[in-house]
Amino acid sequence: MVDTVVSSAKKTLIIANDRPFCIIGERINPTGRKKLAAEMAAGDFSTVERDALAQVAAGAHMLDVNAGIPLADEPAILASTIKLVQSLVDVPLSIDSSIVEALAAGLEVYEGRALVNSVTGEEERLEQVLPLIKKYDAAVVAISNDETGISEDPEVRFQVAKKIVNHAQDYGIKPADVVIDPLVMPIGALGGAGRQVFRICQRIQEELGCNTTCGASNISFGLPNRHSMNGVFLAMAAGFGLTSAIMNPLHEEEMGAIMASDVLLAKDANCARWIRKYREPAPEQTAGSENGEGRRERRRRRA
Amino acid sequence: MVDTVVSSAKKTLIIANDRPFCIIGERINPTGRKKLAAEMAAGDFSTVERDALAQVAAGAHMLDVNAGIPLADEPAILASTIKLVQSLVDVPLSIDSSIVEALAAGLEVYEGRALVNSVTGEEERLEQVLPLIKKYDAAVVAISNDETGISEDPEVRFQVAKKIVNHAQDYGIKPADVVIDPLVMPIGALGGAGRQVFRICQRIQEELGCNTTCGASNISFGLPNRHSMNGVFLAMAAGFGLTSAIMNPLHEEEMGAIMASDVLLAKDANCARWIRKYREPAPEQTAGSENGEGRRERRRRRA
Repeated sequence: MVDTVVSSAKKTLIIANDRPFCIIGERINPTGRKKLAAEMAAGDFSTVERDALAQVAAGAHMLDVNAGIPLADEPAILASTIKLVQSLVDVPLSIDSSIVEALAAGLEVYEGRALVNSVTGEEERLEQVLPLIKKYDAAVVAISNDETGISEDPEVRFQVAKKIVNHAQDYGIKPADVVIDPLVMPIGALGGAGRQVFRICQRIQEELGCNTTCGASNISFGLPNRHSMNGVFLAMAAGFGLTSAIMNPLHEEEMGAIMASDVLLAKDANCARWIRKYREPAPEQTAGSENGEGRRERRRRRA
Repeated sequence: MVDTVVSSAKKTLIIANDRPFCIIGERINPTGRKKLAAEMAAGDFSTVERDALAQVAAGAHMLDVNAGIPLADEPAILASTIKLVQSLVDVPLSIDSSIVEALAAGLEVYEGRALVNSVTGEEERLEQVLPLIKKYDAAVVAISNDETGISEDPEVRFQVAKKIVNHAQDYGIKPADVVIDPLVMPIGALGGAGRQVFRICQRIQEELGCNTTCGASNISFGLPNRHSMNGVFLAMAAGFGLTSAIMNPLHEEEMGAIMASDVLLAKDANCARWIRKYREPAPEQTAGSENGEGRRERRRRRA
């Protein structure tokens, strides 16, 4: 079992395969949210505030914070967004940017031990990001693509992940502080995408000693009933060692499936969280199925 | 990959880990259904007819047929129920009884290659049931308990399963024709019940070369929101090689989770069945999440 320890000023969180699945709220991100981007560029953080509070209330264990607004001063905006979010909520943050200066600015103001999102297997990125991780004693999301892009071959993606872990060790960063994103492909385009991720999560844990994360919604790209598919995907992947996901915690189906997987993987002692959430069951759930539980037992007694 | 082949007069079905998860409809069973028991004892099979048609319409690949009515002539009722159900639907049947004479009567009238539900690891049962399986060239559900009852120790249950497979081979019955029920414990009482079943399903496949089935609803006994839990359990177990379940195919949540697991385990080519079932997506599912799919890609392009 590998422990990735992150923290805020007031809270420590351990990402590990024997802990509840770690939900990293993805909402504070202007990419693809034009209105939010305009607000943030204009210094209006009211949506950020609402998103921060709502995601934590919905059960997020961490929040991802991204300030990627074209032509804006991303380092400055990211730093102030992080300060604001840390003043509102206690959960640790994931500092998310593709611009190294923004990551540095975010790390400089962050209180606690951050997760940095992300480094890739590209040499230039490794050389820029890993020293920052070491300097600020942070953990880092490692995305398993490199200069050649994203391989459809899971073996190649595994090797990229391995390379990042090795480079990190060269910088004195432990495998436990590298959280690998094995990259989830759309299953509508690549039928083996599910099995690929399950296998790679297992290998990353066993062979590299790292925790894992992913952007789960990619799996259902182009399909109907996406939330159900995403939920089942997350639960199944958790069975193979996926330890966290960057996702929208306001989606009930995904959250319910993850909570069920926590119960089924013995990460929810006495089913306490499950019972607390669902304790007012609908009548058909308490009546007992006519034909379900206890049937074998009853039959056996009768036999 | 192990193929368990069952059939009706018109249809052959293969239970295997590279085929869609096999759903065995559990409804035709008077155990715990007093009204149905009274009807069947009085020769009224109208509920049986409705249950047969409804379960197949809902997606059952097989139907379990049980006629266990106290003080009734179970062999005769089971035989006529099987004839009736075979006249109504094309799917293969599972002939379900704890009375050996009833199994024999059912097998005698059955058209095709049946699944017999069940034998246990009890010596007397093995000696009574296995010759019938051989005589009628059927497949059999093997329940992993014996004279000592149901062990909470999965290793003991695995050893009971192994013993049944060995005995079956002594009678000339191949492991492929033994479908093992590893026995699902309530997770509310035994926190490790999920991980136990996942592990045992994997071992049964790898070490014994058998397919597996279970009564899934036991897992959620005593908990709220049972259908969600059952669905996630079935999907996760399928990831570890569970190949079928005896269940109620009218439960949407369980069926949806199994269909998603079929997609994710590459058992639903081109997601065809998933798309057919859910092709009218709700607006929020087509709009594309503001923050989900394509985020990484967009960011990467921007970087």
